[in-house]
Amino acid sequence: MFTMTASGYMGKILYIDLSTGKVRVEELTEQIAEKYIGGSGLGAKILFEETSAEVDPLGPENVLIFATGPITGTRVFSSSRFETVAKSPLTGIYGEASCGGYWGEKFKRSGYDALVIRGKAEKPVYIYIDEEEVQIKDASFLWGKDTFETTHILRGKIDRSIAAAVIGQAGENLVKISCIIAAGEHGRAVGRCGLGAVMGSKNLKAIVVNGKKKVKIAREDEVKSLMKKIMPRMRSGVAEAIRKFGTSAGFVDCENTGDLPIKNWYQGRWEEEAKKLSGQTMAETILVGRYHCARCVVGCGRVVEAADGPYKGMQIGGPEYETLGMLGSNCLIDDLPGIAKANELCNRYGLDTISTGGVISFAMEAYDRGLISKEDTEGVELEWGSTSALIQMIHQIAQRKGIGELLGEGVKRAAEKIGGYAVEFAIHTKGLEFPAHDPRAKVATALAYATSNRGACHCQAFTHDFENGVSLPDLGYPETLDRFAVEGKAEFVFKMQNLMSMIDSLTCCKFVIHGGVTVEPLREFLNYVTGWSMDTGEFLKTGERIFNLKRLYNVRCGISRKDDTLPPRILTHKRGGGTNILPFLNLMLNEYYQLRGWDEFGIPTEEKLEELGLKEFKSY
Amino acid sequence: MFTMTASGYMGKILYIDLSTGKVRVEELTEQIAEKYIGGSGLGAKILFEETSAEVDPLGPENVLIFATGPITGTRVFSSSRFETVAKSPLTGIYGEASCGGYWGEKFKRSGYDALVIRGKAEKPVYIYIDEEEVQIKDASFLWGKDTFETTHILRGKIDRSIAAAVIGQAGENLVKISCIIAAGEHGRAVGRCGLGAVMGSKNLKAIVVNGKKKVKIAREDEVKSLMKKIMPRMRSGVAEAIRKFGTSAGFVDCENTGDLPIKNWYQGRWEEEAKKLSGQTMAETILVGRYHCARCVVGCGRVVEAADGPYKGMQIGGPEYETLGMLGSNCLIDDLPGIAKANELCNRYGLDTISTGGVISFAMEAYDRGLISKEDTEGVELEWGSTSALIQMIHQIAQRKGIGELLGEGVKRAAEKIGGYAVEFAIHTKGLEFPAHDPRAKVATALAYATSNRGACHCQAFTHDFENGVSLPDLGYPETLDRFAVEGKAEFVFKMQNLMSMIDSLTCCKFVIHGGVTVEPLREFLNYVTGWSMDTGEFLKTGERIFNLKRLYNVRCGISRKDDTLPPRILTHKRGGGTNILPFLNLMLNEYYQLRGWDEFGIPTEEKLEELGLKEFKSY
Repeated sequence: MFTMTASGYMGKILYIDLSTGKVRVEELTEQIAEKYIGGSGLGAKILFEETSAEVDPLGPENVLIFATGPITGTRVFSSSRFETVAKSPLTGIYGEASCGGYWGEKFKRSGYDALVIRGKAEKPVYIYIDEEEVQIKDASFLWGKDTFETTHILRGKIDRSIAAAVIGQAGENLVKISCIIAAGEHGRAVGRCGLGAVMGSKNLKAIVVNGKKKVKIAREDEVKSLMKKIMPRMRSGVAEAIRKFGTSAGFVDCENTGDLPIKNWYQGRWEEEAKKLSGQTMAETILVGRYHCARCVVGCGRVVEAADGPYKGMQIGGPEYETLGMLGSNCLIDDLPGIAKANELCNRYGLDTISTGGVISFAMEAYDRGLISKEDTEGVELEWGSTSALIQMIHQIAQRKGIGELLGEGVKRAAEKIGGYAVEFAIHTKGLEFPAHDPRAKVATALAYATSNRGACHCQAFTHDFENGVSLPDLGYPETLDRFAVEGKAEFVFKMQNLMSMIDSLTCCKFVIHGGVTVEPLREFLNYVTGWSMDTGEFLKTGERIFNLKRLYNVRCGISRKDDTLPPRILTHKRGGGTNILPFLNLMLNEYYQLRGWDEFGIPTEEKLEELGLKEFKSY
Repeated sequence: MFTMTASGYMGKILYIDLSTGKVRVEELTEQIAEKYIGGSGLGAKILFEETSAEVDPLGPENVLIFATGPITGTRVFSSSRFETVAKSPLTGIYGEASCGGYWGEKFKRSGYDALVIRGKAEKPVYIYIDEEEVQIKDASFLWGKDTFETTHILRGKIDRSIAAAVIGQAGENLVKISCIIAAGEHGRAVGRCGLGAVMGSKNLKAIVVNGKKKVKIAREDEVKSLMKKIMPRMRSGVAEAIRKFGTSAGFVDCENTGDLPIKNWYQGRWEEEAKKLSGQTMAETILVGRYHCARCVVGCGRVVEAADGPYKGMQIGGPEYETLGMLGSNCLIDDLPGIAKANELCNRYGLDTISTGGVISFAMEAYDRGLISKEDTEGVELEWGSTSALIQMIHQIAQRKGIGELLGEGVKRAAEKIGGYAVEFAIHTKGLEFPAHDPRAKVATALAYATSNRGACHCQAFTHDFENGVSLPDLGYPETLDRFAVEGKAEFVFKMQNLMSMIDSLTCCKFVIHGGVTVEPLREFLNYVTGWSMDTGEFLKTGERIFNLKRLYNVRCGISRKDDTLPPRILTHKRGGGTNILPFLNLMLNEYYQLRGWDEFGIPTEEKLEELGLKEFKSY
């Protein structure tokens, strides 16, 4: 195994080729950092440059990039996240996923901003990184083990203080909805876009980081004083509710407003059952603790325990809102301990709970409609509301057995393979399964899903909270927005996507917004940490640049207006409850493209590329 | 070669297997005839029963059906058409095309209602049919010849009185937009859905018919008296305009109202140029005669001659409205003799002028946008408005040379192959190129295109004339409709599709409607000829049954709501001129499906199948 000593300075990119075992380090220049920041901005730039349009997402030529941002590893609230970027095997386009825990900080404190992995190891390996060395080590003894076991073994073998980003059997088996788990039994997933399979395709079981160097800060006193000013807000309001009841604090409200998916996005109400899955019910029943990512003052993470019943003894990171929506209400399952168990299995195998819930609820509908049979499921009665069916499907998907082989390809491919009208109820955009927020309940969210660069996503614009009770003064929205109003929503999505592109590049947690850490505090933190003097216009323009860069990558993959859409059920079926008629997406898109400076086909114009300094990425 | 003597009675179906050379005849029972009438109704039934869902359209297992209807070969106005039905190689779904001339009558008068061709001959053959015999004969001496030459040789070899449905080099070369030509130099094409390639795939060059038997009529006096009553109306109004100026009598009006496609459906106005292509200009310049199909009192067919210029000496069936729109305005070509020449080439090669114009205008846009280069076109400067480019492309398509190989696959596949945003301006529905009427100019036509069983089509609902100046009293529309109104249009499309399903099964020319031959006269003619006593409700219900049968075939092919749509440009680009904003297709579809008794996915419900007597065709 090749080993090396890292330089010890910040601002480096670490390149590892697993085919050759070669490791090299390059400087991250300030010019590049100012233009692309870090995280997904830097990741998108590297992905674009390091791969061709035709690269097979599961081939050795795809690169898997882990990137932190300028504020990662500092004391700034919730700044410890990292972004993983690669061409997605699930969607075939730009793939990214953000992750919390301690991995980002420990990687950054090893002296790097980004890690770029290419090639494929001959046999299973893991990578070890700290400020002293980079090692590629044999991982044969870990292959076939789940993410909890793997993390546990690595901690025992190396040190309790490590953080490990690991894949489970799903990633090893190249399941296209597999994820990477970064905090062992507490979960924290690089969830979306099937990036676990990219890691598996490289025979890479784990990336262990254990850096302890202090991250240099240009204006430390100003960081401290801004932190102090904001702190009270991080411990009140929505932030406080999330601390107490986790991300499912608003579960019942989501059911009321039609935000919650029910029965594969078909049914309108599920009032009594929703109460059984709320964060409040969790707190009253199975909750035994909280989990905080590094530098977090909120602590949305849950720790739950089954005191009795079929899962007695299970103690585990508890299900988040998304997981409860996708494995729960969307499958008509109201069994909280059962969902926690299913969540545990997904985390152990390394499966994205959102996509997994999406394909299983789809499969339940296909079974209900007679499009797949008990023969296809190897005897599983894939009925609505069945925890047992849910759990058996998770096993089949991760192990690529029975119909799990097909479902693990994602809902788009599964529906196409099943054929006929199955495509009508396959709920995805650009091949990525919907997360648990219904665009029929919130107009901006519809446009956000349609135009998100990684496919259907609530995080790339994060509009859903701000169309329902939360205001955002320093982006120009002092009052909460009317969720059914169409006017002005294209501009709102445009602004939010630009801001979120910055947050995903900085890289910090989006929940800080609930504590009032929005445009100005983020810009100040960035300037204080780096010593830059970016003004508000430049800050948002940089987000716009990053958003456009990802779009340009997708244009190179063949994406255009035709793909900026929503599935037939979402466009045509009124499910009732708190949802309302869908806004006319095409008209919103026209306005949105104009704001973006894209042409009628959704392709950035040369003028826009010139303005953003992206001419070298013209891909059409 | 196998020969046989036909039975001499009406009501027979002739089956020919070209692989084995076997010929058999089956009775067409009155029960089947009453349920499916003939033409495309009978054709759809046979296609459904004789093929599996997986059949390769160009494989020997596909069947190619030629069918006439109960009134074909009688003295009823314009009743001499026939329908050709097969699984389409262009769209992969239900394919049909209707054709005039004398072939239908001469086939019917040989004693048959339908011809079902299966298998593939070892070497090129033609089929000869009259009331005495059916022969499969060697056609090696015809292979490679164009449709005019082929027809000419067959007439010389057999008899001047024959009619021959023949393919040109395009059908031989399995070009997916190839047609069958049934009246030699006068054209008359089985135009749409690439059925020429199906004939080519069977090594079948021509089907020659020469029946002279009288078709039996139950109540001849009543037919005569109804004819006499209607005759004056067939010689006035729209019918008279068509007689004088052909199908392009309304060309200038189509430009005014935004019905005419211009620059691949992009540009709004083309006022001065349109005048150069009108039927009136044709009459003043190159027109030298008219062509009538059998039993026709209108005579929409043109005969044109180039007295001088580059095409001097050309005397040929003149271009129809569709041809002028698709090869002309849609390519920005205003050169009438040049378009007549291109039309001649299409007819000789056996290429559908609608699809050919569709793919060439698409290719001109792709060339203009730099998505294809001069290298791809083998040096052709594929510029807007270039007659030379148009003609060179027709040669390339028919001969499968250069970019013609790709364009001959149809605009859907070509755009997918070119990749990127080319798909955004590929104008088709369900893989069939749009005919020359813009759905942005007429609301019902938008819904009609989206739901037509063979893909984008103006003939399967024939709404376009009735949203612009023409009324239809006995279908419940005493006044002409407002073309931009949405209310009631779903019902209008529903009714028109049912009526047109009957006309395509009877089989007669749709232009009779302009002479007032609508629901009641058609029903009376049917009853008088057959001796039946079908009431108005049964008449329209039979049309509904036939429309649903075709839908069921398509459902078996995987068609559902997702496919009932229009291309992005049509849904999103306001081209100005006489067009207007597009109606909200999804809302119209909801209403349309309810009227049809189809579920939310566009699939006929079991109750509807029960009502229509189609339970045996449940395909999902």
